[in-house]
Amino acid sequence: MKILVQKFGGTSVATLERMQKVREKVSNALRRFNKIVVVLSARAGDTNNLLQLAGQWSPAPDKAECDLLVSTGEQMSIGLFTMLLKDADIRARSLLGSQIPITTDDSFGCARILEINSAALLDWLNQYDVLVVAGFQGCTIDGRVTTLGRGGSDTSAVALAAALGSVECEIYTDVDGVYTTDPNICSSARKIDRIAYNEMLEMASMGAKVLHIRSVEFAQKYRVPVRVRSTFTDDPGTLVTQEDSTMEAVLVSGIAYDRDQARVTLRDLPDVPGVAAAVFGPLSEKGILVDMIVQNTSLGGHTDITFTIPRKELKQTLEIMANVAPKLGAAEVLHDVNVAKVSAIGVGMRNHSGVAARTFAALTKEGINILMISTSEIKITILIQEKYVELAVRILHDTFGLDWDLS
Amino acid sequence: MKILVQKFGGTSVATLERMQKVREKVSNALRRFNKIVVVLSARAGDTNNLLQLAGQWSPAPDKAECDLLVSTGEQMSIGLFTMLLKDADIRARSLLGSQIPITTDDSFGCARILEINSAALLDWLNQYDVLVVAGFQGCTIDGRVTTLGRGGSDTSAVALAAALGSVECEIYTDVDGVYTTDPNICSSARKIDRIAYNEMLEMASMGAKVLHIRSVEFAQKYRVPVRVRSTFTDDPGTLVTQEDSTMEAVLVSGIAYDRDQARVTLRDLPDVPGVAAAVFGPLSEKGILVDMIVQNTSLGGHTDITFTIPRKELKQTLEIMANVAPKLGAAEVLHDVNVAKVSAIGVGMRNHSGVAARTFAALTKEGINILMISTSEIKITILIQEKYVELAVRILHDTFGLDWDLS
Repeated sequence: MKILVQKFGGTSVATLERMQKVREKVSNALRRFNKIVVVLSARAGDTNNLLQLAGQWSPAPDKAECDLLVSTGEQMSIGLFTMLLKDADIRARSLLGSQIPITTDDSFGCARILEINSAALLDWLNQYDVLVVAGFQGCTIDGRVTTLGRGGSDTSAVALAAALGSVECEIYTDVDGVYTTDPNICSSARKIDRIAYNEMLEMASMGAKVLHIRSVEFAQKYRVPVRVRSTFTDDPGTLVTQEDSTMEAVLVSGIAYDRDQARVTLRDLPDVPGVAAAVFGPLSEKGILVDMIVQNTSLGGHTDITFTIPRKELKQTLEIMANVAPKLGAAEVLHDVNVAKVSAIGVGMRNHSGVAARTFAALTKEGINILMISTSEIKITILIQEKYVELAVRILHDTFGLDWDLS
Repeated sequence: MKILVQKFGGTSVATLERMQKVREKVSNALRRFNKIVVVLSARAGDTNNLLQLAGQWSPAPDKAECDLLVSTGEQMSIGLFTMLLKDADIRARSLLGSQIPITTDDSFGCARILEINSAALLDWLNQYDVLVVAGFQGCTIDGRVTTLGRGGSDTSAVALAAALGSVECEIYTDVDGVYTTDPNICSSARKIDRIAYNEMLEMASMGAKVLHIRSVEFAQKYRVPVRVRSTFTDDPGTLVTQEDSTMEAVLVSGIAYDRDQARVTLRDLPDVPGVAAAVFGPLSEKGILVDMIVQNTSLGGHTDITFTIPRKELKQTLEIMANVAPKLGAAEVLHDVNVAKVSAIGVGMRNHSGVAARTFAALTKEGINILMISTSEIKITILIQEKYVELAVRILHDTFGLDWDLS
């Protein structure tokens, strides 16, 4: 049985006309596959409206009840879409997360999938040609409705593909694939045909919001090939898959950026054991996600620690530091919100040296001051002043030849 | 464990302010009862909007998918309301029909309850003080979502009360009880304190739309006392219960009417066996509900058959009769839409004669012509010209002394 999983996002199912387009896609796919599992998000805007409603009802809505409320968004989508399929005489039925079930833990609002009843799914696939599954939702072992958190429908789709051993998982969205960088700020940005899971993870975490990061982790873990493509074109999109030798030939696959950064520096800290823990412990307790961290080599027993955080966390971070800094004997606490992060990503970096050097040289040549540097196996990230972000993206895109199609 | 079931309709949960009022009711009831089961309808308008949406998506929406869609209305209500309870530190949780489960047959759109898992409910009542149950919905044995049809939330509430053996079932609505007749056309209409199930059934089927007819049948079958009362006042409302001797002392309990009537007459039919079957068989096949039927005594081997139907069915009925009448040898088919039905209802009638005679005499005295008569054990129904309906209601209300409070 050749099974395909297709996931359609909120903009793809927003209106009757768009759902009819989706039906066309599904109907066409039925010519190439025996069975299709369609995963749908809520119609664009529905989830936000439901969350807003919850906010009107309660300052801090009970999380389990909020999940029950919000999950109606996908429930509506799958009901409406399955009506369309049945009207076209396609043997189809809808499935809620709780009906399969897609069992999750009880972290309401951001639940993790524990198990999918694939035997039941295969049974239904014997009776129906298309199963229409509500994305973003599951249920606890005792049957309470959960949601998987933002972008969770991608995760639902990949998890279903993994459970069913489907040939491929298609994620339909309103863009036609993953780009070498944001086409809005770099006109020579090019769609990538194939990208490795690792690269995609680094791209996604940098705000290239095509695929939800957890879905990529899931795909990597279960080796599910994921194709990102557009509902509104026939372009084959981008295949996210295991890394192979052709990918390694490419030094850098993409340039990502993130403006949502604020920088905090603790100056002149005594360099004694336990300082870093004393700084980052209280931040982690408050759930503040620290991104880049740089600590300079100690000079005369004193050092500086600089780190970045999302901008909306700055106020709370400064409050915490105002408490921590005097205790540690820091000279002062500095901060800056006019900063942004730019990254060059590529599995090819692993086997090539010189990427960092080329990055710094290219930026310096244009007079862009580098505020922080952080490197990983397949990524180089620099922090710069925000006003340079578009320029830096274009320079790096050009430097690593991303406007040439090498495939 | 003293358990109370309280059902709140769509207008009672339409807004945040109203839901807060409902929370007050529930909270107060918790002083008198150990545990409360709250049954909620969808917020006013939601169900209609969802049905309308389905109608936009499909000319004849798949019934199972339509139920999945429409059931989101109650799901939203219970999620939102349970948030409010939790904010007031009340130990509460929501329950969908499928979570209990309330098992139904698979007549999607008008499913019948087969079984309620009362053991699970009692378990939850050990953990929580208030269970908030979605009305109007259940699920099939294999877990598909069903709805119980219009007014089904009343049925859910009564069925839950029956399953739990609760002391009483309160149905909250926007009127403060059952009236002797429609106060809009008879200013001396009086709220009834107690009414027998049978009387309520006759009232409900006549369009006194306070309680859904199926919920009354359910209540009667399982002897659940049902109190109809208003969310917006503290009036004790009307208790619908088993008939007792005090009720029988009252000759007539209420006057009901129904304008949605059309009359069709087949004239001069040969009076041979099988004629009635030939007339009403095809109507029943098309799902047309025939209400009153009168066949005169045969004169010279010929007879007339007259019956009434809802007005919207008239066109289809006449089409069917145009086909049936010539085959049966009827002289002609007559019809009239300017007719209405008025009924006097009361269990006391059973032991008293003369109610029919008094009804006819009172109407005749005012010059109201009686077109058809139909009587049952506890009801007398007459068909009259529609223009007389308000007058007839007032006359009968007065004739049977309904403006005097005898209790």
